[in-house]
Amino acid sequence: MDYRPRPEDVRFLLNVVLDAPARLQALAPFAEVDQALQSQVLDEAARFVGEVVAPVNRAGDEVGCRFDKGEVISPPGFREAYQAFVDGGWPALSAATEDGGQGLPSVLEAVLYEWLSAANHGLTMAPGLLHGAYACLKHHGSDALKTRYLQKIATGEWLATMCLTEAHAGSDLGQVRTRAVPQADGSFRVSGSKIFISGGEHDLTPNIVHLVLCRLPDAPAGPKGLSLVLVPKLLQGGTRNAVHCERIEEKMGLHGSPTCSMRFDDATGWLVGEAGRGLAAMFVMMNSARLHVALQGIGLLDAAWQKADAYAAERRQMRAPGAVPASRGTEAADLIAEHPAVRRILDTQRAWIDGARTLAYRSALMLDVAAHDADPKARERAQRWCSLVTPVLKAACTQQAFHGASECLQVFGGHGYVREWGIEQVVRDARVTMIYEGTNEIQAIDLLVRKVLPDGGAAMSAVLLELRDALDASREADADVQRRLAQLRYLGTTIAMSAHANPVLPFEVADDYLRVVMLTMMAWAWARIEAAGSTDDDAGRARAAAAFRRWVLPEFEMRLGIIKRACENLALSHAAAAEGVAR
Amino acid sequence: MDYRPRPEDVRFLLNVVLDAPARLQALAPFAEVDQALQSQVLDEAARFVGEVVAPVNRAGDEVGCRFDKGEVISPPGFREAYQAFVDGGWPALSAATEDGGQGLPSVLEAVLYEWLSAANHGLTMAPGLLHGAYACLKHHGSDALKTRYLQKIATGEWLATMCLTEAHAGSDLGQVRTRAVPQADGSFRVSGSKIFISGGEHDLTPNIVHLVLCRLPDAPAGPKGLSLVLVPKLLQGGTRNAVHCERIEEKMGLHGSPTCSMRFDDATGWLVGEAGRGLAAMFVMMNSARLHVALQGIGLLDAAWQKADAYAAERRQMRAPGAVPASRGTEAADLIAEHPAVRRILDTQRAWIDGARTLAYRSALMLDVAAHDADPKARERAQRWCSLVTPVLKAACTQQAFHGASECLQVFGGHGYVREWGIEQVVRDARVTMIYEGTNEIQAIDLLVRKVLPDGGAAMSAVLLELRDALDASREADADVQRRLAQLRYLGTTIAMSAHANPVLPFEVADDYLRVVMLTMMAWAWARIEAAGSTDDDAGRARAAAAFRRWVLPEFEMRLGIIKRACENLALSHAAAAEGVAR
Repeated sequence: MDYRPRPEDVRFLLNVVLDAPARLQALAPFAEVDQALQSQVLDEAARFVGEVVAPVNRAGDEVGCRFDKGEVISPPGFREAYQAFVDGGWPALSAATEDGGQGLPSVLEAVLYEWLSAANHGLTMAPGLLHGAYACLKHHGSDALKTRYLQKIATGEWLATMCLTEAHAGSDLGQVRTRAVPQADGSFRVSGSKIFISGGEHDLTPNIVHLVLCRLPDAPAGPKGLSLVLVPKLLQGGTRNAVHCERIEEKMGLHGSPTCSMRFDDATGWLVGEAGRGLAAMFVMMNSARLHVALQGIGLLDAAWQKADAYAAERRQMRAPGAVPASRGTEAADLIAEHPAVRRILDTQRAWIDGARTLAYRSALMLDVAAHDADPKARERAQRWCSLVTPVLKAACTQQAFHGASECLQVFGGHGYVREWGIEQVVRDARVTMIYEGTNEIQAIDLLVRKVLPDGGAAMSAVLLELRDALDASREADADVQRRLAQLRYLGTTIAMSAHANPVLPFEVADDYLRVVMLTMMAWAWARIEAAGSTDDDAGRARAAAAFRRWVLPEFEMRLGIIKRACENLALSHAAAAEGVAR
Repeated sequence: MDYRPRPEDVRFLLNVVLDAPARLQALAPFAEVDQALQSQVLDEAARFVGEVVAPVNRAGDEVGCRFDKGEVISPPGFREAYQAFVDGGWPALSAATEDGGQGLPSVLEAVLYEWLSAANHGLTMAPGLLHGAYACLKHHGSDALKTRYLQKIATGEWLATMCLTEAHAGSDLGQVRTRAVPQADGSFRVSGSKIFISGGEHDLTPNIVHLVLCRLPDAPAGPKGLSLVLVPKLLQGGTRNAVHCERIEEKMGLHGSPTCSMRFDDATGWLVGEAGRGLAAMFVMMNSARLHVALQGIGLLDAAWQKADAYAAERRQMRAPGAVPASRGTEAADLIAEHPAVRRILDTQRAWIDGARTLAYRSALMLDVAAHDADPKARERAQRWCSLVTPVLKAACTQQAFHGASECLQVFGGHGYVREWGIEQVVRDARVTMIYEGTNEIQAIDLLVRKVLPDGGAAMSAVLLELRDALDASREADADVQRRLAQLRYLGTTIAMSAHANPVLPFEVADDYLRVVMLTMMAWAWARIEAAGSTDDDAGRARAAAAFRRWVLPEFEMRLGIIKRACENLALSHAAAAEGVAR
């Protein structure tokens, strides 16, 4: 069964829960982008994804990419699907009109990429990377580079890569050794090896533009010595540059996307941004790139849920307990959807999907606000939201993608473990999202150690107060969320105090803290969904709301307890030590 | 890196924590099996597994089994490794001496299979299935069948299968349609199709003995109409029987074990046990088969942990927070083992491994006691333990195998997602253990609905009291376990009362109940390990003990809360309904 986007589900969250159309129209560039236009774009995107992108997904996994003497051959159907993607103008949906884009809001692009990832994660990797390269070049590229590359990348005519990782430098980019030597003509000669380069070589576009993190001669050691250099596969006039793919990795999944080992042999390139400011140039698109991965997670979870939900509505095994279900008829066995254990799996994933979507779409809206709001304070608030919420979504949505897809596989029993239904592919594909674009452990440290604690929790408190202001304390669910928000603010203070006594403690509780934040935000999202009245007439959404409260939210207290005990034990051991000193 | 068994870890649990040597020697058949002999068997098993079985694991995954015109070709090295396994007498370790076995305790076989699964899950599937067939035939086979098949199966000269599942009958065996028609000579003609038959066809042994669940003419519908028929691949004199492999499945993992679709075309077979008692004949070995799968889970988790632990002790990335670790030296980056997030993953898996091992080895001991104790009351107690604890271990150990292996994959970052280090194979292989031999959801229902509730929780209470009696309330950790055991007994009563009002409720909380039982038993196991003094001089074990308390055990309160709220909400809704009636 191929994935089919359901635009009506998304529209409900965008239009009713998040009031996105009005918020977007209040931004100058989107004054004309009314609800009808947004809706039309979503319908078109849904059609394109369902009809063109989803059908080639299985070939991406089963045939995969082939490596042959330095060339990479895409899986059957990928070239055609990608060309249709370019022809439809989809890569440039949110790019500026002066770069050949359509100038539409980020939030529409977010939905598009969630669906693309759900339908075909492997193919989606290719255009998924051009947005970062586009943003990076647009902000930091010289006019000459922009003239030559910006529009080609924006429109997807040429694809791009981010060449960061080296064999010994994974999460620790400060260890990067690839060298770039300046030439008299202003260009650079780049030498070194990079691994794990998604789309480092392929046959989807004639040219490939590599953004390579490297070190100039005499650059200081560590991350401050890094620069970013643009190295195209083809130089002007079509000459082949000295950048080559040496092999592609055999991976657990994501076989539709070639993961390349690249060798640069005095390849010609040009500096992007200032020398020594390579990380800063790259990090300009970090929030949108990480949100993109969170959306992949949501999409993959939805793909898994959709398969399991359809299977559970057809497959019959044993009698379900309790009252005779209407679906029984004269059948000897009941639908597995009627069995409580299966129901729990399906409703729990649905709770994650709609809750996480609400938060991810809100983040995409905030990217638009941060870029376009006339009020600098509104831009700042939006930026603060993105900075704090993005690592939470990246980690939590990808974690749930893998674990939730595995739960959905369980619905199929033995049939889930074989290739036939495609569910095991989702589990394998989803696993990588927990690793790339910063491992989930690094997201947790980024959140707590780099963002929450340095200002004593002030920015996080401000975000939590914003969430509180959207609540209505007269509603029971909202009052519960208020209580959790207050606990969370207090928790930040507790950790900050403990961190003075033991700087390792925040690293030890970072994962728990990220989960507590996510669960609170999910509670907020579900309270908003219920306040919008949707659970009254949508049985599936009502079951998901109940599943969230019964089975997802209890983790909040567990994580809170883990953090508090860590802080208390620390206090106790310090008190004991102090007493020892006093004696 | 190939898996290496660590007999010293196992010996500590068996000899010091569980007092296994003395307990075994108290059983008549094992009077001569002293600690020295047990130790020698373990050392030999460790050597064999490490030197012969582990090295061919990668080929099992990468080359896998090939299907060619009805034949299955094993991966390179598998035939030789299996032959060495047979030559070494390993298949018959615990089989009766009169059947060509060595008559050793089940607990030694349990350790052997844990290691085998850790080293090479695919190859281990082959002999893993003969024990069930042996037990089944030994208990229910006619003398003629025993004479012809029992010793061949016991020694592994011929391998065996269990042919249960059909395309429409997975967990619901009552729907089985394969037919067996009696012949004048006392044999049967078997016709039908079976799927998911592990080792249905292969080249490891000349003959394969299929135990086929089927329906005799005029048998009633449902599970009571099922019979068990033995159908060999080769008939006497070597004639090929009419049983054929039609294809093997493409699976997520476990590529070293062929999962066959089998067709029986009037194949010749012989009834095992009574007509209509097929399920009873098969279920004679259910506890040992499920314990076997739990041990696969433990083994796979240990394999994943061993890989991650070794990688974390070599790989350097970034500075670890806190005091300078001794391992830093002049290196620019610290070992990832020094980073709290990695430490947490490793110590948590170790906590699961040693805790689950303690419980699984105790269960294997109880299998020996149930079979051989002179005191019928002791046999009954042991049987009660096996009946109640086996589904808990099957579900919890396999769940942790998959999720813990995925955590261990995370330690490798991007390197974990590629084939290179072999960790992603463990994740893929482990996933199936949550499904086969009864899905984990079915284990939970088996525990709560079929075993705990029918006698009002009496048998479970007795098991919990046995655990309590082994505690020493003057130890703080033991007092904590006592408290949890008491909560668990009370919980059983609460659920039983709620089940009267709503018979669906036990199905809804079965998973949570199973987890609460497992976490309590793990707390018991760790209290025993600590009482044995081992954490004083083993830093790894001390860290694992702390990890268990900090990060594993908090799930106890969360699950308890989920169950209690379900019971309370039910009580509230009934009170409200009653009030409505009163008005």
